[in-house]
Amino acid sequence: MRLYSYWRSTAAYRVRIALNMKSVAYETVAVDLVADGGQQHAPDYAALNPSHLVPTLVLDDGTALTQSLAIVEYLDITHPDPALLPADPIQRAHVKAAALVIAADMHPVNNLRIVQHLGTKFNATPDDKAEWMRHWMVAGFDALLQMVRTDTAFAFGETPGFADICLTAQYYNARRWGVDLAPYARLTEIEQNCLGLPAFAAATPENQPDIT
Amino acid sequence: MRLYSYWRSTAAYRVRIALNMKSVAYETVAVDLVADGGQQHAPDYAALNPSHLVPTLVLDDGTALTQSLAIVEYLDITHPDPALLPADPIQRAHVKAAALVIAADMHPVNNLRIVQHLGTKFNATPDDKAEWMRHWMVAGFDALLQMVRTDTAFAFGETPGFADICLTAQYYNARRWGVDLAPYARLTEIEQNCLGLPAFAAATPENQPDIT
Repeated sequence: MRLYSYWRSTAAYRVRIALNMKSVAYETVAVDLVADGGQQHAPDYAALNPSHLVPTLVLDDGTALTQSLAIVEYLDITHPDPALLPADPIQRAHVKAAALVIAADMHPVNNLRIVQHLGTKFNATPDDKAEWMRHWMVAGFDALLQMVRTDTAFAFGETPGFADICLTAQYYNARRWGVDLAPYARLTEIEQNCLGLPAFAAATPENQPDIT
Repeated sequence: MRLYSYWRSTAAYRVRIALNMKSVAYETVAVDLVADGGQQHAPDYAALNPSHLVPTLVLDDGTALTQSLAIVEYLDITHPDPALLPADPIQRAHVKAAALVIAADMHPVNNLRIVQHLGTKFNATPDDKAEWMRHWMVAGFDALLQMVRTDTAFAFGETPGFADICLTAQYYNARRWGVDLAPYARLTEIEQNCLGLPAFAAATPENQPDIT
């Protein structure tokens, strides 16, 4: 498999963690989102990913899969061990909801293209952009804190899953943009437990071949 | 079941469609997002939905489920007929990806709280806000147009599913905010096929008890 990835993309980071957890070998193809013009807009890449976003996972038969949550779920179905989602429908819905707080309500609002657009349309300064990102991360973490379990090593149990993957990746952005994490001790504990696992550690931005 | 809903929320609209498709009876509890202070911020509601967003589905045993995609998937698992997702993992990933283009990349960026924040932080005018919403809808529809099938009544087959639910709901917003839909004839065709079905028609904003 080939993963079109960018080292700092937290959406790509999610898929890297899942691939590692499932012991699926893959080749990284770097898509430099901040290169002149943005490699995500190159016609060859846009043909694979019509949203001009990373990640894209290209399977051995050439099928291109987009959207990190759809890809992680594909991997969970095709490589069921270890399971990333509970079988119980209610527990599964709780885990999915926590993942979506991050993957729908936080991350897309802070996406590179959004903050670039804030600059173009509203003359947002670098400080404005950083404040924008922190604002939505704080809102999301406030919600998450009330959704995760408090008596387990990971967000919803003793093994990491869908929500932990999203949380750990989002925490990279939170640290990068200086979110005050003091109110989120439980979330930090989950992140640290995740980063102690080789599958997560190998997927961090710092360990990517395209780091600049 | 009780659905905490707001007539114009496209996220609530998705769940209303799914409940109708699955023939699940429910009671609507109105959460007026634009009332003074916003009923979504009321402590009683925030206890059910820590993100202060709609929808929330409260099951008969009192369990509160949040995040529309997690709720729709819960309904699909617990009420499997008609199926909203293909069983084949690759086809399923394609449907999920299309749904996430809407539910992650379009809708959250245009959420009420985001455009309210644009006004507070960047003095965005009503015109600026409408342009912001159209901009991200156009970007999303451009991508979607390349993702859906072109030879079927619905987005990915001869029966409506996960992606059709998200598309039909998003189209309400597109029309409301004046997106030029001329380039999206295929998407409009899918929407119209959906709205011809009673489950979709009964879920439209115009048919909600809390319409103002």
